[in-house]
Parts: sequence; C-alpha cells; structure tokens
Amino acid sequence: MSVAHTQTMSLLSTPAEVRQFVREQKHLGKTVGFVPTMGYLHEGHGSLFRKAAATSDCVIASCFVNPTQFGEKDDYVNYPKDRLRDTQLAESCGVDALFLPEPSVIYPNGEQVTVKVNEKTDVLCGKSRPGHFDGVATVLTKLFTITQPDRVYFGMKDAQQVAIVSSLIESFHFPIELISCPIVREEDGLAKSSRNVRLLSEERREASEVYRGLKFGSELILNGEKDFDRIIRAVRGYYEKHLTLGSVDYIDVLNYPELTRTKEMMSGRVIIACAVRYLNARLIDNITLDCDNGESEASV
Amino acid sequence: MSVAHTQTMSLLSTPAEVRQFVREQKHLGKTVGFVPTMGYLHEGHGSLFRKAAATSDCVIASCFVNPTQFGEKDDYVNYPKDRLRDTQLAESCGVDALFLPEPSVIYPNGEQVTVKVNEKTDVLCGKSRPGHFDGVATVLTKLFTITQPDRVYFGMKDAQQVAIVSSLIESFHFPIELISCPIVREEDGLAKSSRNVRLLSEERREASEVYRGLKFGSELILNGEKDFDRIIRAVRGYYEKHLTLGSVDYIDVLNYPELTRTKEMMSGRVIIACAVRYLNARLIDNITLDCDNGESEASV
Repeated sequence: MSVAHTQTMSLLSTPAEVRQFVREQKHLGKTVGFVPTMGYLHEGHGSLFRKAAATSDCVIASCFVNPTQFGEKDDYVNYPKDRLRDTQLAESCGVDALFLPEPSVIYPNGEQVTVKVNEKTDVLCGKSRPGHFDGVATVLTKLFTITQPDRVYFGMKDAQQVAIVSSLIESFHFPIELISCPIVREEDGLAKSSRNVRLLSEERREASEVYRGLKFGSELILNGEKDFDRIIRAVRGYYEKHLTLGSVDYIDVLNYPELTRTKEMMSGRVIIACAVRYLNARLIDNITLDCDNGESEASV
Repeated sequence: MSVAHTQTMSLLSTPAEVRQFVREQKHLGKTVGFVPTMGYLHEGHGSLFRKAAATSDCVIASCFVNPTQFGEKDDYVNYPKDRLRDTQLAESCGVDALFLPEPSVIYPNGEQVTVKVNEKTDVLCGKSRPGHFDGVATVLTKLFTITQPDRVYFGMKDAQQVAIVSSLIESFHFPIELISCPIVREEDGLAKSSRNVRLLSEERREASEVYRGLKFGSELILNGEKDFDRIIRAVRGYYEKHLTLGSVDYIDVLNYPELTRTKEMMSGRVIIACAVRYLNARLIDNITLDCDNGESEASV
C-alpha cells in the first residue's frame, strides 16, 4: 500500500534539526505533511502515515509521550514504548523524518505558558478527563510551530480531538490544512485499537455490536430522525439487547464539529459516539454523518 | 533618525494579506520585524518602529485593541482610537505595513482556545490585573502566527510584558528573536507615557522623583547590596521623603526575567519597579540591572 521509498528516514531530536529539515524540503518546493503521535505505533497510525505520504510531498511524524495530557502520573510513566518498532513502522509507511524529542526539549521552561481549550471539552471522553485537551492543544501548538507543516493528519477514532484541533488551528491562525482520516475497522466493523488485544475472546465476538449500534442510530438519522434524545434512546435500546458483557459508559449525539447538544440537529454534520467498558479494555467508537450526504468521516 | 523611506506603507486588514506581504518580503531575502501595538500611537511606539526599521529589512506593525486583555469592559470600549494619526506616525517612523484587523478576524471563533500564562503574572502590575497577561499572550500567539516575523520589538516600559513574551516565545518554540527596547525618558528622567499629560503641573514637577527613587535603589545594588527587602525599604524611604502628592502603589525588586522574589538576588539581572498614583494618572517605571555590568535595559 505504501509508495516506493528508497531514501532512509531521518531521525530528528531537536527543534533546530526539524526546522533545518523543513526548510530544505520547502526550498525544494515540497509540501510538508505532519502526523503527531505518542509512539507505540500500530496500524491506525500506519494508515495516517500512508495517507500523508500519498497527499503531501514530504512526511514528518513525531513520537512524543506528552506528559501534560495525562490525568494520572502512573499512566504517563507506564505508557508503552517501542522505539525500534516505531522507527521501522514509520519508515515502511513512507515517513521521511521522525521527530523523537525529550520532554525537556518540548517543555524547556516547564509549563510557564500553556494552551487552554474553553469549548468542546466537557462532552464525550473529555468529560471524564479534565485538562486532557489542554495538554493536547499545548503540545500541538509547540509541534505545529516547530514543524510548520502545510497539512496535519489526525484519525477520526478520536473525533473530539479532531474537532478541538480544528478549533486550535482556527483560533491561532495556523496556516495548516487539517486532514481527518476515517476510522480503520476490522472485517466485522470493530474499530481497530491497540486495546482490542485486551478483550477476552467472548468479549471480542460481542464487540462488533458496538459499531452496529452506532450504525443503527445513523440509519435512523438517514431516515429522517432529527431528535437527539430519541436517537440516543434507540442506540441505548440496541445495546441493552445486544451487549451482555460490555457496559455502556456513554452514548451521545452531537452537532459536529461544534460538539454541541441541541434538541434537534442543526444543519450539517452530526456525530454518534459511544464508549463501552469491558473487563480490561474501554472501547470508543463513533460515526460522523453528513446529514445531506450520509456517512462521512474524512473531513472536518 | 529613521531611514529614508520612499515606498508607501501598506495597509492590511486580513491574515491572508499579511501572509502574502510577508511571503513576498521573505522571498526577496528580507528579514521581517514586527511591532504589535494597541494603536493611539505616541513617541514610545515611534522609538520601537525606528529601532525595528534600523535592525530589520522590513517592518510590520499592528494596531489592535485586544478585547481579552481588559479587565473592565468599559476600559475596552473607551480605549482611544485615532487611526489617521496612527497611520501617519507609523509611516513616518519607517513602518512598511500596518495590520489593522477587526476583532472578529483575530477571534474568529470567540475564545474557544486561549493561552494561559502560569508564571510571572502574580507580581508587579499583574497582581492587580488577573487574566490580563493571558489575553496578551493569546493575542500575541495569534499575531506571531499570522506575521511570522524574525524579530519582535517590545518596550521595557512594560518589563513584565517583556518577561512574559520571552516565556511565550520559548514555550511555544516561536523562531523569533525578542528585542526589548529601553524606556524613553523626558529630560528630567520621567518615563514617557501618554498618561503624563493627565498630571497636574505640580504633580508633573514631582514625578521625576519616581525615576530618581529607582536610581537610588539601583545604586545601592551597584554598591553591593543584595538583600531585596533592604533595597525595597530604601526606595520606600526615598519616596516617603520626596513624594508628597503621589502615593506608592507598589515597589518591588525581583530577579529578571524570572520575576521571582528571593531573599538575595540570584546571579544575573534584577528589576526595580514601581507604580505611583497621582490624581488622574498612575505612573509605572522600572530599572533593570545587569548586576555585573550595571544598568541594562536593552535585552532579555
């Protein structure tokens, strides 16, 4: 799937090295695509890298476990790392330069100045993760300023993050095009995630129902249902019938990318999103719908 | 003092126009200097413009009354404007392009995403202006991203602002050099300010003592005094003797640009700063000292 790729990928560790690399690429007239990640890369990241390689002349990816977006210090300290595999996967997917900075490089003066996200945060997963998106927006502001890309690529798996990155780019006037990439799914519809391996085999069989419940809701919308509460109740009813092992954390229907709850949908797009808890894994999934043109995950 | 200047100054009102202008200048190999202001320009701004014109190939200035840095809505609404005079003064001081955006252009989505300054804000004037520097850092982040300058110029009159801009640039990795420019003074030492015209004539005569008090403190430091409290007490004593009309709002001695209060000064630079209230004007002034090399206002 990836394009032919002969040149060796550059490994960069300082902003100065990144700037130098980007300057050279732009001097050659190339467009620069950027894919920020926390490392421990999997196929979802791979699909972002390939999308970036197919649509930008040059691709920079970063692997940086951002301390300021974790609620619990333990989560941060225990976040898995596999730099060798990350490097190999990135290179095989067409990444031209991989930025692997230390925390002290990204946060040279601690958190003296940070970014605050004042809307879109108190819904979906943000509700249970106070401050998470402030940390995300802070690190992305730094990374965008360092890498100065023409395009950035984010996966719609975290649709709330995509909506917030859209606000960040608009608010700070970054001259960057946001490319949101569709959720990659298993054959039975389950959204791919590194957490799926933690599902017990019976849970894994059931988990495809998570997506089917969202599809059930989206079909109601496509058939003309506009009342958000009624759609949520219908999806909840579906899960009550089809989920026996998983327990629903939330189901929500919101205008997208505004992430506002109105009684009836506003014109434009909506998202149906949910989180479901299994024994050792919490799964999230969503469908965004263009109310005029049906399911549409590929743009903000 | 300003260099010969034949080309007409460009008036720009959108980020796209600014980007286009900057792109052309950089394409010609020119360095870009940026001077952000709130308009209603006076000689202090003029000295920044001339400094920028003398040290950068091309100068952009902005006049934008930033709503998010005002505590009181009245202050914002009543902030004086004189666009014609601003335009003439900027042009006569060597500004090549003046950016005059509307609030809705700078804040296209309101305050969805803002900047938060977590250090250096609870001292000096910041103490009585909660949120002020968050607003300043927010608008500067936007303006820096729009104008992409090589250098930015700020006056040391607002030394706290200079210290915070230094943190902002470092935190977000802006590839920008911060040039801080010395306070411009009247012959008797009074720091120039548009507020000085509000002083009654007796107040005006007394006001030169504000600077002399700071000088008194700075001489103690140059003579080896390192205890911050003792320096503050000495300056307070000076003002008790020499100010009969003005009342001291604060006097402080801090490490600079850290703006931290330690018992004794850390190596490096310190600031002695004060605010003094007169009937219709509150004056601020400061001296920064390089403890090894004496008074030094011109760099962070």
